[in-house]
Amino acid sequence: MASEKGIKLLDFWVSPFGQRARIALAEKGVEYEHKEENLLAEKSELLLKSNPVHKKIPVLIHDGKPVCESLIIVQYIDEVWPDKAPLLPSDPYQRAQARFWADFVDKKVFECGGRLWKLKGEEQEAAKKEMIEILQILEAQLGDKKYFGGDTFGFVDVAFVPLTSWFYSCETCANFSVEAVAPKIVLWVQRCMERESVAKTLSDPKKVYEYVRFLKKRFRIE
Amino acid sequence: MASEKGIKLLDFWVSPFGQRARIALAEKGVEYEHKEENLLAEKSELLLKSNPVHKKIPVLIHDGKPVCESLIIVQYIDEVWPDKAPLLPSDPYQRAQARFWADFVDKKVFECGGRLWKLKGEEQEAAKKEMIEILQILEAQLGDKKYFGGDTFGFVDVAFVPLTSWFYSCETCANFSVEAVAPKIVLWVQRCMERESVAKTLSDPKKVYEYVRFLKKRFRIE
Repeated sequence: MASEKGIKLLDFWVSPFGQRARIALAEKGVEYEHKEENLLAEKSELLLKSNPVHKKIPVLIHDGKPVCESLIIVQYIDEVWPDKAPLLPSDPYQRAQARFWADFVDKKVFECGGRLWKLKGEEQEAAKKEMIEILQILEAQLGDKKYFGGDTFGFVDVAFVPLTSWFYSCETCANFSVEAVAPKIVLWVQRCMERESVAKTLSDPKKVYEYVRFLKKRFRIE
Repeated sequence: MASEKGIKLLDFWVSPFGQRARIALAEKGVEYEHKEENLLAEKSELLLKSNPVHKKIPVLIHDGKPVCESLIIVQYIDEVWPDKAPLLPSDPYQRAQARFWADFVDKKVFECGGRLWKLKGEEQEAAKKEMIEILQILEAQLGDKKYFGGDTFGFVDVAFVPLTSWFYSCETCANFSVEAVAPKIVLWVQRCMERESVAKTLSDPKKVYEYVRFLKKRFRIE
């Protein structure tokens, strides 16, 4: 691993957004200090100072300067360490496409997944229907490609793959099968998991489910 | 103006998102065909084909290939025509900052502004309080700089300035003064309006207000 001084990641173990930054740093072979935030207790002084606007992890602190918002962090990492494992394509049109699909994942998958495990009855059914449509759109976009950008692991893969460790929780809470509606996505997750950067980063789906059950109890939503 | 073949913008006159693309193209001196969509009637075949996922304007079609989502379009324009009026800074950290603030504008100003003119009573009061906080955060970020990125008109200015022509509607519907809470922002709008790219693009605030009143009647929200 390249040794880089003064790189710190403010993170939370199960956060798919934090995991995006971790995967990008691992792909680049950049060493950094991982600082786990306890989001259920008070937020740290460092987090509040580094991200005063949103007060959220992940924050990448590089030479004392904070970068916030996971997709912006991943692009920053790609621009600062461009020589190894480029994540965004070099062609402007392909870059725009990669940004479009990462943005789609960002706006749709997490929000809808949240509704899937938080809601019940008709509202949950509506969220399930929507999630199936979202997955089918992503399935069609992936097609028979190895990764979303083609043969090379890239920006959309980094954006999406951490969210897939929540699939088991979504399936269990809302009683459906991702594999049945998006089999190519499931195979793509397996291909991504062959990469050390992903395998070492993604949460165990069963641990995510335990966390979801803990949240449901804590916030009295079951 | 540079003559470029095969550039088409699917747009809607009052859309601040469409106006972002128009300002970026004007800054670059790129000629294009402007195709006005009638969003109150059926969407055109071309729009549905070009943006099947979101079915929204703006769409920039360049040599037959569509680019969607306004901030992605502006970045695309900046990457394809890099020689004139660079919009994103060249330094990765400054780029990340510009993306952060454009994203902040994107997530906060439009959504909160919508609630301001659509809602009433306590809900409107809550939206007004939130909008004042948002404007004060942006005011602090602008500080005494000429533009958001410093001395040069750039990405955050392009992202934010089209939304300011809705200020008059927000002020009128919710009874408050942007100038009273964010005087530097008002001066910054005036500076932006000295640029032809902005002055020729932004909607007349009174026309925006007429449109808001039309929408309120149409959707029976007053």
